[in-house]
Amino acid sequence: MSEVLKIFKIGGGIIDDTAQLSFFLSELARVGGKKIVVHGGGKGANELLTTLGMLPNMVNGRRITDAATLDVVTMFYAGKTNKQIVALLQQVGVNALGLSGADGNVIRAIKRPVGEIDYGFVGDLPEQSINTELIQLLLEGNLTPVFCAITHDGHGQLLNTNADTIASTLARALAHFYQVELHFCFEKDGVLADVNDESSVIPQITPSLYTDLKASGAIAAGMLPKLENAFAALEAGVAKVIIENALKINKPVKTILCRD
Amino acid sequence: MSEVLKIFKIGGGIIDDTAQLSFFLSELARVGGKKIVVHGGGKGANELLTTLGMLPNMVNGRRITDAATLDVVTMFYAGKTNKQIVALLQQVGVNALGLSGADGNVIRAIKRPVGEIDYGFVGDLPEQSINTELIQLLLEGNLTPVFCAITHDGHGQLLNTNADTIASTLARALAHFYQVELHFCFEKDGVLADVNDESSVIPQITPSLYTDLKASGAIAAGMLPKLENAFAALEAGVAKVIIENALKINKPVKTILCRD
Repeated sequence: MSEVLKIFKIGGGIIDDTAQLSFFLSELARVGGKKIVVHGGGKGANELLTTLGMLPNMVNGRRITDAATLDVVTMFYAGKTNKQIVALLQQVGVNALGLSGADGNVIRAIKRPVGEIDYGFVGDLPEQSINTELIQLLLEGNLTPVFCAITHDGHGQLLNTNADTIASTLARALAHFYQVELHFCFEKDGVLADVNDESSVIPQITPSLYTDLKASGAIAAGMLPKLENAFAALEAGVAKVIIENALKINKPVKTILCRD
Repeated sequence: MSEVLKIFKIGGGIIDDTAQLSFFLSELARVGGKKIVVHGGGKGANELLTTLGMLPNMVNGRRITDAATLDVVTMFYAGKTNKQIVALLQQVGVNALGLSGADGNVIRAIKRPVGEIDYGFVGDLPEQSINTELIQLLLEGNLTPVFCAITHDGHGQLLNTNADTIASTLARALAHFYQVELHFCFEKDGVLADVNDESSVIPQITPSLYTDLKASGAIAAGMLPKLENAFAALEAGVAKVIIENALKINKPVKTILCRD
């Protein structure tokens, strides 16, 4: 059996709170074995855009990224957030190394084609977008890659890219070499059987249970796309997808998605 | 004889001019063998500080870096400038990978002690500050490391650090493993015998010629600290120090500093 690789995706909420971020990173230091971190943006980039007089332009929860916005989010994600996380991980003994997709050509994206909406400088990830050789070189060198949500097109253009998509694309590509656990860390303890009861975390969901849960309407609508993506990742060879509280990664409470 | 490693330090002027920067990087792509880029800041960081209402605070040409300034210069150097250079190098076929000193603990600095002036979050580089093992791993993987002028102290604190100092400290540390050529690229063609004559580039300066030139007062005062550092690097094992025009790195005109 190949070695376990744990990929942790963390999102906005925890990045905006320095104390929570430090706590998460110190808990991450206690997780043994090979690991990767993928981080989203947080509110800081929007605050900086606003301060600079550029109103964040969101359509259906997605950012329209013009050239000036791309400059600012690149500074914020690849500069401030990424280096802060790397420096804090170094402090707790994790040999982290921050990456955008341009670094070592590690994630080559395709600028999203202009359809009804022009999303601007936004990157989509085709199959084969991941330079698995470089990631293996780093992992085998006992480094922990830390990815921000910026990629490139290989022709000199940086691109803003969804961090969830980066995490699942990395997981799928690296599943050829490792037994990959993809951890989506957020502010709840897992997938809830009853959205009004925080203690109703479902410990394990298989595709057949998922079919039942969907039919019964038990799962919160907002959770459905995350779960669809998760089961697609499992189909593609990822060993486990785990949905858990970013502050409780070393606690038993969490939802584990796995094949039947 | 060990393999040649060329370290190119580029400064503010060329970074501020996108066309010149692209030209330099395309010329760099024609330079064979192992190489490293170290880049300074440019005026962009000062413009951003000013836009954000933070007046750049310089004393004797050195920036006083308070916490808010550090945030901005980290965003600018490690985010915008570094990723722009990396993406442009990828475009011209150089497998560049951007690094701050925190990434892979590659440069661990010491916060400058508070003396008559408190420089704030500024890092000095002791001997042994360079993680040569990681740099060798990257170079042997055919990657071109691109360093910005941000380091860390290993205890979670990022530090603003002089790019010339980073370049010479890298050169000295890597001289144990490679035949290092340290290239300081700027807007003139080399060290001038007559400061009023741009064509009076001195092709080669040895320590004995340097002694003569200093005695005759021929060398511009502003060049003296650069040359002192260069000869110190040669003393410490660096094979050559080259002072050249960033736009003419593949032309023969330049000043080569080497031992007698």
